[in-house]
Amino acid sequence: MAVLRTLLGDALRETRLRQNRTLREVSGAARVSLGYLSEVERGQKEASSELLASICRALGVRLSDVLREVSETLSVIEPEPDVLVPSRPQALPTPLPVASVRAARDVVAAA
Amino acid sequence: MAVLRTLLGDALRETRLRQNRTLREVSGAARVSLGYLSEVERGQKEASSELLASICRALGVRLSDVLREVSETLSVIEPEPDVLVPSRPQALPTPLPVASVRAARDVVAAA
Repeated sequence: MAVLRTLLGDALRETRLRQNRTLREVSGAARVSLGYLSEVERGQKEASSELLASICRALGVRLSDVLREVSETLSVIEPEPDVLVPSRPQALPTPLPVASVRAARDVVAAA
Repeated sequence: MAVLRTLLGDALRETRLRQNRTLREVSGAARVSLGYLSEVERGQKEASSELLASICRALGVRLSDVLREVSETLSVIEPEPDVLVPSRPQALPTPLPVASVRAARDVVAAA
């Protein structure tokens, strides 16, 4: 399961590469060390909120846009939450009408 | 300018309160200390990706949904990025046709 910092790092690296910019350029503009930015991009380090904002500014993108992109990626791979909160019982599947079940059985029997 | 951890904390606290659950319940379910969860909710501590995922599981919500909500809130309050990357010059506003300008001037003059 990919964690948030991995997806954030991927999004930041892709943005930088689309701009044909180096780690050196962006880390300088963001006033973070090159090594730190590199670790953030590889999902090895959690960026603080302030540094995330600074990296986004250096890339000329909005953090909200990066987060939306990340949330979309995550929504595809994230499993449904375990239900730990009280919830209504799940509806049972609607049973097929008896006639349909008989018809299907006849088809199977005839095959 | 609200930083990301403040908005994340707000979103987590609102989710917990909507469920009428206490800090004690949710911190227990998430296996984090009550003090830590409280600090995260108040935007005083950055939650690591793993702990953020754990808190969301304990709340029975998807992290992607929380992030989308946060990105929407942020998009309203976040300023446009400073342009630090080379970009094309902005297009000049399209001038109004002379006839429209004259018509508007006549309306103003007649008032």
